[in-house]
Amino acid sequence: MALENPLFEELMKDFDSRLTHSGIDGERVASRLYELSHIGYTQIGGVKRPGFSDEEKKAKSLVKKWMVEAGLDVTEDGAGNIRGRLAGKNLEAKAIASGSHVDSVPNGGNFDGPLGVLSALEIAEAWKATNYVPEKPYEVIVFSDEEGSRFNSGLSGSRAMIGAIDDKEIEGLRDYNGDSLEQVLTHYGSSLQQFKEAKRDIEELELFVEVHIEQGKKLEKADQPVGIVSGIAGPAWLEVEFIGEAGHAGNTPMIGRRDPLVAAADFIQRIPEFPGEISETAVATVGKMEVLPNGINVIPEKVVLHVDIRDIYEETRDALLNRIIEEAEDIAKNRDIQLAIKQNTKIKPVPIEQELQAQLADSLKEFSIEPAYIPSGAGHDAMILGRHIPVAMLFVRSKDGISHNPKEWSSLNDCIYGIHVLKNFIEKKMGETITNSN
Amino acid sequence: MALENPLFEELMKDFDSRLTHSGIDGERVASRLYELSHIGYTQIGGVKRPGFSDEEKKAKSLVKKWMVEAGLDVTEDGAGNIRGRLAGKNLEAKAIASGSHVDSVPNGGNFDGPLGVLSALEIAEAWKATNYVPEKPYEVIVFSDEEGSRFNSGLSGSRAMIGAIDDKEIEGLRDYNGDSLEQVLTHYGSSLQQFKEAKRDIEELELFVEVHIEQGKKLEKADQPVGIVSGIAGPAWLEVEFIGEAGHAGNTPMIGRRDPLVAAADFIQRIPEFPGEISETAVATVGKMEVLPNGINVIPEKVVLHVDIRDIYEETRDALLNRIIEEAEDIAKNRDIQLAIKQNTKIKPVPIEQELQAQLADSLKEFSIEPAYIPSGAGHDAMILGRHIPVAMLFVRSKDGISHNPKEWSSLNDCIYGIHVLKNFIEKKMGETITNSN
Repeated sequence: MALENPLFEELMKDFDSRLTHSGIDGERVASRLYELSHIGYTQIGGVKRPGFSDEEKKAKSLVKKWMVEAGLDVTEDGAGNIRGRLAGKNLEAKAIASGSHVDSVPNGGNFDGPLGVLSALEIAEAWKATNYVPEKPYEVIVFSDEEGSRFNSGLSGSRAMIGAIDDKEIEGLRDYNGDSLEQVLTHYGSSLQQFKEAKRDIEELELFVEVHIEQGKKLEKADQPVGIVSGIAGPAWLEVEFIGEAGHAGNTPMIGRRDPLVAAADFIQRIPEFPGEISETAVATVGKMEVLPNGINVIPEKVVLHVDIRDIYEETRDALLNRIIEEAEDIAKNRDIQLAIKQNTKIKPVPIEQELQAQLADSLKEFSIEPAYIPSGAGHDAMILGRHIPVAMLFVRSKDGISHNPKEWSSLNDCIYGIHVLKNFIEKKMGETITNSN
Repeated sequence: MALENPLFEELMKDFDSRLTHSGIDGERVASRLYELSHIGYTQIGGVKRPGFSDEEKKAKSLVKKWMVEAGLDVTEDGAGNIRGRLAGKNLEAKAIASGSHVDSVPNGGNFDGPLGVLSALEIAEAWKATNYVPEKPYEVIVFSDEEGSRFNSGLSGSRAMIGAIDDKEIEGLRDYNGDSLEQVLTHYGSSLQQFKEAKRDIEELELFVEVHIEQGKKLEKADQPVGIVSGIAGPAWLEVEFIGEAGHAGNTPMIGRRDPLVAAADFIQRIPEFPGEISETAVATVGKMEVLPNGINVIPEKVVLHVDIRDIYEETRDALLNRIIEEAEDIAKNRDIQLAIKQNTKIKPVPIEQELQAQLADSLKEFSIEPAYIPSGAGHDAMILGRHIPVAMLFVRSKDGISHNPKEWSSLNDCIYGIHVLKNFIEKKMGETITNSN
């Protein structure tokens, strides 16, 4: 297997070994990314580690071993979240935490998740190597099932940790085998009761900071290895139905048709104008649609489409949402088409405090990196924790913006820059006034 | 079963019995529609008689029995087409023919096909009852498998009759059970050899005239029971692929997106403008489309859609086809989207001679029906025969324009008006100069 997987060699190939300093070791990070890549390895160089699978569990066990070696106290909650804790000088202080996840989408890459976990862990390694003892407690966290490929509903670990998964949702969960959460947890070695008890007092944390690959092209365009996440966009999902009148494509004159696909098309082609009118960071996308009955010679009766609307500010996100709904209503009215709109998902965007962004910018500048501010369009575990505590995020440049794909790639240089910035930032936060934990 | 099927009662309920005259008998037509409706009867009042099925065969046997009773000589060819022939006074003259089909779509109605067959048959009945002997031979034809629900490729009987199904097409045919045409024919009681021998010298016919339900709403709007088909539109089918660049709906800025669905939407919403610019009778429809990969939070990579383009004139149909292709090319170019266009089907429209339309108009006027001229958007067996010989068609008003549906309905009054007009027209043609058959 090792021969088939060139990840380590490719990472080391153009690594600038001068980046290995201050206890941060590029080769160690590369070899750990490589070791993780073997768990759930797919023949085409990707990984498959669904949440709560044997593969995810094996990846977590490996991380736990590394945590212990780095001198961390390891605990695991009933949702499978792993915490490696360093006490710090002041046991009463709130902790600073960092981490990410090790599960993947069905044919995922080697950086989405693992990079954040190994970055957080590398801080502890660096401190151990340099005999640095932080003022406050430090936690490395591995969250379970972030991607959502198990239950079609992600961020399970972080949501369980803040108690955001209620009984109703639990009841509705079925995985790709049709198994309930309870069955999955039992196989995993936990139980529904223990899952519910995973809720912790998240206020014990002063701050959570996550390193993640960008999954976009902005850093590549800006020619910077690392950037500052300016906010985490919350998606709002609309399900829009246009209902018209079916008919024979040959026998129905053009005049008087009530074709819902023409109405839907008019709607879709207008959407790209709106985000820019409202906010620089807003986006709106129709990615999924169905035409019924979908026959070549039949005027459709119904079109169902889904609009994904995001911004890092709730106000502008909702303004865009309303603008899009109004447009659908106008089009339907003008074209004598029936309209039904359902709002399935509406997640609050998570702002990132200006002060934290400024501190990250200072850390970047210490490594001569020009700060680029990037909205995170995708959700992350930091988004969930951000509902209750301050969070910050660093993005590491993604080659060609590709992710959720075996081709996902960030150079080892970029990864190590990210870890240096993370360490600098966390050490700055360790030095700030201590707030006591409840 | 009879109790569950109220067709006869409903047909007779508002029938104006004064329309039963000159040998044409409304009650006989109603009772025959009713008898046919039991063959392949579906619980919801529709019929299922796929081409070459036991049900279609049973329906043909019933028609054959009626043909014999009406004094016709019955023959059947290897494609399952039934001909009932009346010699006429001049055995050497070319025949005038009328008919349609008795197969149906999977959940079809009781008029599409059977009305044309029973109309043609009722002419022979009327002549028998009134001791009228036509000058020229007369043929009642029942074509096999018109709808195409057997092989996803219709008009099999009429196309076999003119020899328009070649070996390559035959080889590719697979029915809903995966059976080849040969297997289907063997079960039916014919053979591939006999099917090929079904080709007849179609020039033996002077004219084919078909009565059919309109399957549209123009007669309803014009408040007329029967109308004249002004031409039979030939469909041209385009398969259009827009290929862009997939991406995460959250992480990809609006600027620089190459979203193939937005391009496709722009294309679809422009199409309805074009037919009217080119021809009064042209139509263009997108009925079928697929978005790939079709994920809510994924900018699509590819959209495949199908455009159905029709007109009764080949020149304007092709002008519309070219206009639509140009538009797709313009949009793709302006939006930096890759385009692939395939032309799968391109059937020649069949014009109907002005003189025949004028003669039909005269016949309509004799029954105080104002002539309405209606392009046929759908294909019919007359379209196939029209490639070689003159054809004419009469449409009978369809309630709400519905067809291919158990709700398909034409009142018995309208049906009988159609038969009277057909008889008047055919008798006029019988009186014209005789042209000899080859």
